[in-house]
Amino acid sequence: MASKLIAIVAGVGPGTGASVARKFAATYPVVLLARKPDNYEGLAEEINKSGGKAIGISADVSDSKSLKSAVETIKKEFGEGVGAAAAIFNASGGFLRKPFLEVPEEVFSQSIDVSAKGGIYFSQATLPLLLKGVEQKSQHPPALIFTGATASVKSNAQMASFATGKWALRALSQSLAREFGPQGVHVSHAIIDGVIDIPRTREWLPQFGPEAKLSADGIANDYWWLHTQPVTNFTWEIDLRPAVEKW
Amino acid sequence: MASKLIAIVAGVGPGTGASVARKFAATYPVVLLARKPDNYEGLAEEINKSGGKAIGISADVSDSKSLKSAVETIKKEFGEGVGAAAAIFNASGGFLRKPFLEVPEEVFSQSIDVSAKGGIYFSQATLPLLLKGVEQKSQHPPALIFTGATASVKSNAQMASFATGKWALRALSQSLAREFGPQGVHVSHAIIDGVIDIPRTREWLPQFGPEAKLSADGIANDYWWLHTQPVTNFTWEIDLRPAVEKW
Amino acid sequence: MASKLIAIVAGVGPGTGASVARKFAATYPVVLLARKPDNYEGLAEEINKSGGKAIGISADVSDSKSLKSAVETIKKEFGEGVGAAAAIFNASGGFLRKPFLEVPEEVFSQSIDVSAKGGIYFSQATLPLLLKGVEQKSQHPPALIFTGATASVKSNAQMASFATGKWALRALSQSLAREFGPQGVHVSHAIIDGVIDIPRTREWLPQFGPEAKLSADGIANDYWWLHTQPVTNFTWEIDLRPAVEKW
Amino acid sequence: MASKLIAIVAGVGPGTGASVARKFAATYPVVLLARKPDNYEGLAEEINKSGGKAIGISADVSDSKSLKSAVETIKKEFGEGVGAAAAIFNASGGFLRKPFLEVPEEVFSQSIDVSAKGGIYFSQATLPLLLKGVEQKSQHPPALIFTGATASVKSNAQMASFATGKWALRALSQSLAREFGPQGVHVSHAIIDGVIDIPRTREWLPQFGPEAKLSADGIANDYWWLHTQPVTNFTWEIDLRPAVEKW
Repeated sequence: MASKLIAIVAGVGPGTGASVARKFAATYPVVLLARKPDNYEGLAEEINKSGGKAIGISADVSDSKSLKSAVETIKKEFGEGVGAAAAIFNASGGFLRKPFLEVPEEVFSQSIDVSAKGGIYFSQATLPLLLKGVEQKSQHPPALIFTGATASVKSNAQMASFATGKWALRALSQSLAREFGPQGVHVSHAIIDGVIDIPRTREWLPQFGPEAKLSADGIANDYWWLHTQPVTNFTWEIDLRPAVEKW
Repeated sequence: MASKLIAIVAGVGPGTGASVARKFAATYPVVLLARKPDNYEGLAEEINKSGGKAIGISADVSDSKSLKSAVETIKKEFGEGVGAAAAIFNASGGFLRKPFLEVPEEVFSQSIDVSAKGGIYFSQATLPLLLKGVEQKSQHPPALIFTGATASVKSNAQMASFATGKWALRALSQSLAREFGPQGVHVSHAIIDGVIDIPRTREWLPQFGPEAKLSADGIANDYWWLHTQPVTNFTWEIDLRPAVEKW
Repeated sequence: MASKLIAIVAGVGPGTGASVARKFAATYPVVLLARKPDNYEGLAEEINKSGGKAIGISADVSDSKSLKSAVETIKKEFGEGVGAAAAIFNASGGFLRKPFLEVPEEVFSQSIDVSAKGGIYFSQATLPLLLKGVEQKSQHPPALIFTGATASVKSNAQMASFATGKWALRALSQSLAREFGPQGVHVSHAIIDGVIDIPRTREWLPQFGPEAKLSADGIANDYWWLHTQPVTNFTWEIDLRPAVEKW
Repeated sequence: MASKLIAIVAGVGPGTGASVARKFAATYPVVLLARKPDNYEGLAEEINKSGGKAIGISADVSDSKSLKSAVETIKKEFGEGVGAAAAIFNASGGFLRKPFLEVPEEVFSQSIDVSAKGGIYFSQATLPLLLKGVEQKSQHPPALIFTGATASVKSNAQMASFATGKWALRALSQSLAREFGPQGVHVSHAIIDGVIDIPRTREWLPQFGPEAKLSADGIANDYWWLHTQPVTNFTWEIDLRPAVEKW
């Protein structure tokens, strides 16, 4: 029943999320989660028109009820016994580079509620579907992939709001990799170390040329590669950066 | 005006918090923060009787208003311009070793609200006092010390709730060390890697003898050592474990 | 002149080295380096018979002269201006799990001479060819890949001999990634965290089944994946382990 | 028989080594090891004149025979059954910040032979004396301390020669901490992250003032602190840097 397996992408926007959704849509029906329909409507239409299948659901990852409700919608759409081949957590929030004492409490909350709590809620919502994917003998081991950042491994001055959430998310991914790997679910974490080439960043770093930014499609290829690793060869973590990036 | 400098300890209980409070009380008036007065009343009395000065304040570190109110109380007690020589964050919560899908949402929230948000709120509340300590030329550089755990650097299976909060706290401490070190405040993080010898754990690991557990007074000595390092020689992180601990 | 680009594999044996050589031989002529001809003769024959091209050269990676001589042989075979699309360092030595005071000096030397010095000599010998590969506009960025182990990131009791060499090799790979990435060479390090399924280990871990061991062909696929990443999306490090591995 | 316990310092020069020797000489007779007598003669004289006891021995840590011979000299001087309270490895070599392909083979060898092999030989030579120190019930747990650097944890571009040796040394220290901690020997590693204030560096970083450099006496105090930690509270690793250091 491979046809029942779906892919779920949280944090769909103009960059990584959309590229990942397109990539996985070539093989699976995809569910696009974002707070605002604006962020998934065009993409869902594009995927559906080009022969794939996509549905968008408004959901706030920092609200466990919202995610539970999204799963109900998924089950209505794809059947009560639906399994997932992939669940990708690409949401983040709370980035503000400022002196610590000037960062409003809300910014910290946003980072921690989206990255830490959001990652947890998303995992609790999707892991049952991924385990169903294992039962249903998905061709590739079901994958739960988290998008990290430089700030997932390095906590620079004035970056506490973003880094606290991202470190927590990385901790989550490591614990889940250890718990769910033996159950057949492949949990991974990608450290995106650089600027992603999206419309919003197009004007950035002009002096370094087009190769100074990460390709969102390239990231999607790498996520797909993680997904296709066999159970004998699981990777928990990859880092990704432009060749010219200083690190 | 060294006499105006105080030490603030959050998360006072029967173990590390109490030992740290006693140690710093030998030099500074200490402020004891805990949610329940039970946790600081006896200790405050003990310190006051033995020639030191201690006041206890009920405060919930996961609630920024509660911490702001505690600072108001501190200023009423020690003067509007009071500086701090040390602020020690020893609170934690949300420890539950269980399959991830069986951990209630509340446990995750507790860990993240106390360790991640609590650490942030405590730092935003105390750093202004520590910076005053710098201005007032404290004998030793004012110190902001965070108590970490094995789970601050390793996120084991079934430990996601505790680890997410603790990794976030470590990220916070690293960012603050980089931002406030140049301003004269010494920010440190201690990885407590083992069982602490307190009444509650006395019966644990009997087969390994008394040396298999960390001494809370020993931890307090190490925090004091961190505090006395000069500005030319700051340590951000130490790990601490019994010699016999397997790691 | 893509036809001039070659792949060089050091440390060809029955496991990872052979699988990597076969994988890259599908696209490039491969040079097989091993101390003993026994280790490459059969493999070279197999590749040559199946339509690829392979030559074997006896070389000791811990001896810089031996590697320089190997490069001379390569140039005689493939032309003075030959470029490389990939150079893979898969050699290691000096594994002896024993109390530190009982490990003979020679074992430490073997580990350090092969893993640390060998990695350096191999890199100094092959990087000029990889940079030629960049000039010659190889389809995929030329790759320099190092095989690491659990002992590359964790130095357990009684594992000092192996770990010292492996940590040094990882340091080498990180420095080279930073220096040569901007020059177009993709330097990577793979942490192989588990037992590889080769004839010698076939009898190991029988209780865990065939999925408890890493597939050498799987590792080769992952090295190929690293090689095909575009310059916008370089990965320095991956970890690889069986899903059931405890870590 | 505390009087029989000695301290051994390898890599005595004008900076950390001398400060450490002076600090430990306040409690123990000290043995000063350096390749050139110039490096220890003045210091030995200074210590002996000021009421301590010091002997200097010419030794090359990268040569195991030289270290074995030094131990013979120590036994002749202090008795066959002499125990050690501390052994501090402060030697290093092979620092050359240059493009990798321009670094001569000898520089790599120097780094690796001194830092990696030297650390191993020094440990094999001194651990039997430290274990004797445990038997002889030294007041503080016998300590084996290694001096590391920024390059022990970060391997920057053009720093491969220094970093390979330093990462290997850190691996050694971690393995030994795990093996010998349970036997009562406290093994530690100090990451010195900054410029040390010694005559040779006095002119460096003038713009940052005297506090921009690490105090060698401060490092010595920290090593002494590590030595005095009880068996219940061992620290494996500390980092040390000036408050103003960017990291």
